[in-house]
Amino acid sequence: MGEEQAGSRTTPPFAEFDAAEYAGRWARARAAMADAGLDALFISSECNYRYLSGHVTPFWVSKSRPMFLLLPLRGEPILFVTTSQVPTVRATSPVAEVRVWEGFVAPGIDLLEAALHELGLAAGRIGAELGEEQRLGLPYADFVDLQNRLPRAAFVDAAELLWALRMIKSPAEIAYLRRSAAIASAAYRELFAAVRPGMSEREVFATFVASTIRQGAERPGYVPVHSGAGHYQRISMGPTDRRLAPGDLLWLDGGCVYRGYWSDFARMVAIGRPTTAQQDRYRRVRAIMHDCIAAVRPGVTMPELTARAQRAFAAAGLAFSSHSRIGHGLGLDITEPPSINLADETVVQPGMVLTMEPTSAAEDGFFQLEENYVVTAGGCELLTEPAPAELPVIE
Amino acid sequence: MGEEQAGSRTTPPFAEFDAAEYAGRWARARAAMADAGLDALFISSECNYRYLSGHVTPFWVSKSRPMFLLLPLRGEPILFVTTSQVPTVRATSPVAEVRVWEGFVAPGIDLLEAALHELGLAAGRIGAELGEEQRLGLPYADFVDLQNRLPRAAFVDAAELLWALRMIKSPAEIAYLRRSAAIASAAYRELFAAVRPGMSEREVFATFVASTIRQGAERPGYVPVHSGAGHYQRISMGPTDRRLAPGDLLWLDGGCVYRGYWSDFARMVAIGRPTTAQQDRYRRVRAIMHDCIAAVRPGVTMPELTARAQRAFAAAGLAFSSHSRIGHGLGLDITEPPSINLADETVVQPGMVLTMEPTSAAEDGFFQLEENYVVTAGGCELLTEPAPAELPVIE
Repeated sequence: MGEEQAGSRTTPPFAEFDAAEYAGRWARARAAMADAGLDALFISSECNYRYLSGHVTPFWVSKSRPMFLLLPLRGEPILFVTTSQVPTVRATSPVAEVRVWEGFVAPGIDLLEAALHELGLAAGRIGAELGEEQRLGLPYADFVDLQNRLPRAAFVDAAELLWALRMIKSPAEIAYLRRSAAIASAAYRELFAAVRPGMSEREVFATFVASTIRQGAERPGYVPVHSGAGHYQRISMGPTDRRLAPGDLLWLDGGCVYRGYWSDFARMVAIGRPTTAQQDRYRRVRAIMHDCIAAVRPGVTMPELTARAQRAFAAAGLAFSSHSRIGHGLGLDITEPPSINLADETVVQPGMVLTMEPTSAAEDGFFQLEENYVVTAGGCELLTEPAPAELPVIE
Repeated sequence: MGEEQAGSRTTPPFAEFDAAEYAGRWARARAAMADAGLDALFISSECNYRYLSGHVTPFWVSKSRPMFLLLPLRGEPILFVTTSQVPTVRATSPVAEVRVWEGFVAPGIDLLEAALHELGLAAGRIGAELGEEQRLGLPYADFVDLQNRLPRAAFVDAAELLWALRMIKSPAEIAYLRRSAAIASAAYRELFAAVRPGMSEREVFATFVASTIRQGAERPGYVPVHSGAGHYQRISMGPTDRRLAPGDLLWLDGGCVYRGYWSDFARMVAIGRPTTAQQDRYRRVRAIMHDCIAAVRPGVTMPELTARAQRAFAAAGLAFSSHSRIGHGLGLDITEPPSINLADETVVQPGMVLTMEPTSAAEDGFFQLEENYVVTAGGCELLTEPAPAELPVIE
């Protein structure tokens, strides 16, 4: 256990963003913390930690050694990591103060407790990842232990604050999201050039994912695969050994993670000649999607966009569930607020990056396409290569 | 919102294990629950959920819609998922009873509350994922809400019970772990046949990962990459644009995830001729690793194995930290209990799958190899193709 204070607020050699980007995030976070009456943020989950610390490590796959960030309203941010992470912190993070321990969780809780006392926050209001679409990145029992050690402190939900921060992407984040979508777009081109009857769903998956990795993705996206003429079957399922046959529709939801940022968009092709009804349904779903995207501009609300899709579905004679989410935020998480549905009152703002994916599931196929786009001052701009105008056919 | 009770206890078409495997897991879980005085297990995180439900979906990347399992001591297990998961449950899981909702978290909490009342467990002792190397798979605030709705119930830590169950692998699990290690072994062969001076760390990463995916891995493993003659720098870091140059040591920790099961083992090669000291240190670290593996047999304890490594390091004149973890459990998580260190009193048992990775970090390189192996009645058996006897040289 110990303390390190080396390093300065310059950009580290392998940082994903320059030091000014992180300084900007801290300034925005602190303004929101002041508004919310928070004295500090306590962060323990991967995406919020990466967003606010810059420290990037693949070690989040292990649950053995958590990592924490304290961002006080006043004073410098502090990272709490095990010894083996220190070189990676120095290589990637602009945070100068790092407190380190050996072993598993408990010594980290000791360090957090000590730091909160030292910062005069033993009776502070600490924002934590407690609510909407958040997870704690440490065992529940250790978080309860931390609260018990600081009986005068209040750990309150900071989900709304964190999502409000992350919802508006900076130009540098948008550049990574653009590259993420470009990699996945190229992977789709490569895949559909290779798809033939007889290819298995597993081969479809591997061809797409290997392409994204070779192009520089740090990891695959969410890539469920579905083939057959079926309905809404197996739609959130990985690939199987099933081989493509004439008469099939092949659907996959593809994407990747580039420097932390996700792409997430579905495409479909027909194996052999599709029916006229299938071609028609593809065109309708695609038209509704692009019509809804064309309506995205600052000031529009999520329910307005959803109602627009609902009216278009009705006009096309297609079913629409009032629970439908026709799109969502995209960033360091694959699904982020806002939800484009009837319940989420969020207003569109410039810098949001969103998906659009109205869906029609019928007996003759599961029809879903998706695009990713960034909201601009006057409307929005696609990040994805747009879905083909007609259902592509692979003979 | 609604309820589904279709399906029977037969093996579903895309199940990863037959129905008997899951019935065996439930029987072992219930025996342990009876011993621990638990009336049910409440499961919300991916690996425990997959282990006990059989339901496999890539949707865990999203935090928007949690999935839950209740396994009562008496009575049938129940899954709680959103509508869109139902086809995938039916395709993969032997659990017959599925309660479904639309939307995000709150309706799922309503269903859980109702089910616990219905099972007569409103004042029950419910085991949950609260402690060691566990995470909750739902927002903290929703778990607190569930507890508040059931003020007479006690939610207690089931980490020890869950790890004791998962620590001993079945023959069917060992077959998947064997395949996972074989895929990664082949990926290393492919990578080292392709590595040349001038190749970037990113290309090393992409070559290895793309190979594992093409061979059938469902996702990449933990693959940090490090090149250079440096020490303990950047050792838990993803690849950079740095290009390999003569005089470098290239180290990576490789592996993949095959049907949920991880492989995790490091290898190293020299780019150009290594020094005699580097060759010698490689041999010593490898010899210590294989000597420790040779000592693994039922009845041996983690501190005994660690002390053996400690003595061998001392005999070889190499530094050894008393905090060192020289290996860990491997399964649905990349790091699972037990930890092979001086503090963990676990006794080796047949069916454990473990890693061994004693490490020597010095000025002229970071020397770490690793093997994965399964404990048998009389000793253990390697799952990985063993590390080469001499530091491989790439000219």
